[in-house]
Amino acid sequence: MKAIVALGGNALTGKERKADIEKQFEATKNTAKSIARMIKNGWHIGITHGNGPQVGALLLQQKIAMQYVSPMPLHVLGALTQGEIGYIVQQCLLNEFRRQGIKRKIATVVTQVLVDENDEAFKNPTKPVGPIYSDEEAEKMKKQYVMGRVENGWRILVPSPKPITIIEADVIKQLMEDGVVVIAAGGGGIPVIERNGVLEGVDAVIDKDLASQKLANEIEADILLILTDVEYVYLNYGKENEKALEDVSVEEMEKYYREGHFPPGSMGPKIEAAINFIKNGGKETIITSIDKAWDALEGKTGTHIHA
Amino acid sequence: MKAIVALGGNALTGKERKADIEKQFEATKNTAKSIARMIKNGWHIGITHGNGPQVGALLLQQKIAMQYVSPMPLHVLGALTQGEIGYIVQQCLLNEFRRQGIKRKIATVVTQVLVDENDEAFKNPTKPVGPIYSDEEAEKMKKQYVMGRVENGWRILVPSPKPITIIEADVIKQLMEDGVVVIAAGGGGIPVIERNGVLEGVDAVIDKDLASQKLANEIEADILLILTDVEYVYLNYGKENEKALEDVSVEEMEKYYREGHFPPGSMGPKIEAAINFIKNGGKETIITSIDKAWDALEGKTGTHIHA
Repeated sequence: MKAIVALGGNALTGKERKADIEKQFEATKNTAKSIARMIKNGWHIGITHGNGPQVGALLLQQKIAMQYVSPMPLHVLGALTQGEIGYIVQQCLLNEFRRQGIKRKIATVVTQVLVDENDEAFKNPTKPVGPIYSDEEAEKMKKQYVMGRVENGWRILVPSPKPITIIEADVIKQLMEDGVVVIAAGGGGIPVIERNGVLEGVDAVIDKDLASQKLANEIEADILLILTDVEYVYLNYGKENEKALEDVSVEEMEKYYREGHFPPGSMGPKIEAAINFIKNGGKETIITSIDKAWDALEGKTGTHIHA
Repeated sequence: MKAIVALGGNALTGKERKADIEKQFEATKNTAKSIARMIKNGWHIGITHGNGPQVGALLLQQKIAMQYVSPMPLHVLGALTQGEIGYIVQQCLLNEFRRQGIKRKIATVVTQVLVDENDEAFKNPTKPVGPIYSDEEAEKMKKQYVMGRVENGWRILVPSPKPITIIEADVIKQLMEDGVVVIAAGGGGIPVIERNGVLEGVDAVIDKDLASQKLANEIEADILLILTDVEYVYLNYGKENEKALEDVSVEEMEKYYREGHFPPGSMGPKIEAAINFIKNGGKETIITSIDKAWDALEGKTGTHIHA
């Protein structure tokens, strides 16, 4: 059985959500235990992850050091964080495997994700990333980025186009089928467009759950396991009549989605990914928390979306 | 036939040796043409590379932004640059493959390299990296790094221990034998030590040519191709009686090495790598320049070291 495990929320940085490196190793060690349990039970695993805090830290460093070192474009920063986070995950995972006597290889594969340069998102970049810049700083940043006015200065605005295909999907699939645990498509992947057959990086941020879903379909995973901070997806979340979802058909989920139960910035894209995965041939999407991953796979908890 | 191609010098950054990102893409595009030629002729290739300018830029950013963002340890910075450079190389290579209709997959594999925590190098870190720090800055940096006095301030001093084994060698070998072009062990690899079976990153810099050689032996490469700025290795380099070396036995090369023809900081480690590769079962080490890579492989130029 093949699964793509999308790590989000506290999985890599702990509850404080800072990019402090010791905390990242610490949080990742715990996450590695959950993954090891899946491996021990025979699963073939591809791991995807976010990069928000890490890319935020790099952007802040670039901002402060701008006078001395040219800022790098966001697609290159994405590549940097794939190396960083991939390393941390593969080291923690390998140590856990050794502790438990699991003989499985691990590889982090730097991953590009194709987007359409005519994607509507490019016409109007709306997603603010990184720190706040002064007028003067923003002027310099305009060479590299689209800058947008905010209350007390400027922020980088990036488009969030839809992933079309995972450029390295074939290698990732091959590795997974050979039993290698693969870490890939970090931060939603490095966004690239294609012009006359030539790939070129663009400053954009692909939603990591949508990229994970695309990868899951392309490698023909059985399960897309989205690990986040909550054990269940809820209807009327935070309200008096909130209700945890357990088993839900894709049609039901689409109805709830249309009814506006899932906010765009958080649960929305996960639900969209969950639905897309099933509609494109996946068996089941599970959304749950890191510590419940195994119980959820055994069907004891979590929100399960199926055909 | 399998080869490890170690890219150095101008291969990735061009003659200016700055980490400016457009120049990196430009220089790498040219390098991709040389690699494509090898691939077209049936070679199975693993690519290694340095990371000096890139890690230098990150260290400088960290220095300037230190008040706002905690500096990351050097092993993590190594991981960041593997993501960065791997991405640039794989994108340029894929574009060149597409242009020429070459159907080969490409993967960058984040690579850890084991070193011995009792390596003599750790007792006395001597290799200065990154920018110069003031007394005050150096005080803060001492939490993360060994700092050494230099004429006008302080610099980070790192040990340069010998590589013992490439942790991800088995995955890299498997991929190469499956025909995938692999980019690995960037910057000499991420240095890790082992304590009670647990891997842990250390602040050190492994020589990239020695790491390339280790990888070349472990994946059982036929050829180790070290690409640098000169077409030949010379005896009495820069002197009146300078002499280009063409075909040299490993014994001859050891003699020249002992005689002090090759300075420690530049050609020295390449020669050491060349010798080690043959002594550990490799067929031939070739040292030449990027633009002469193919001619050298055909035996028309370059310095060839063999048993």
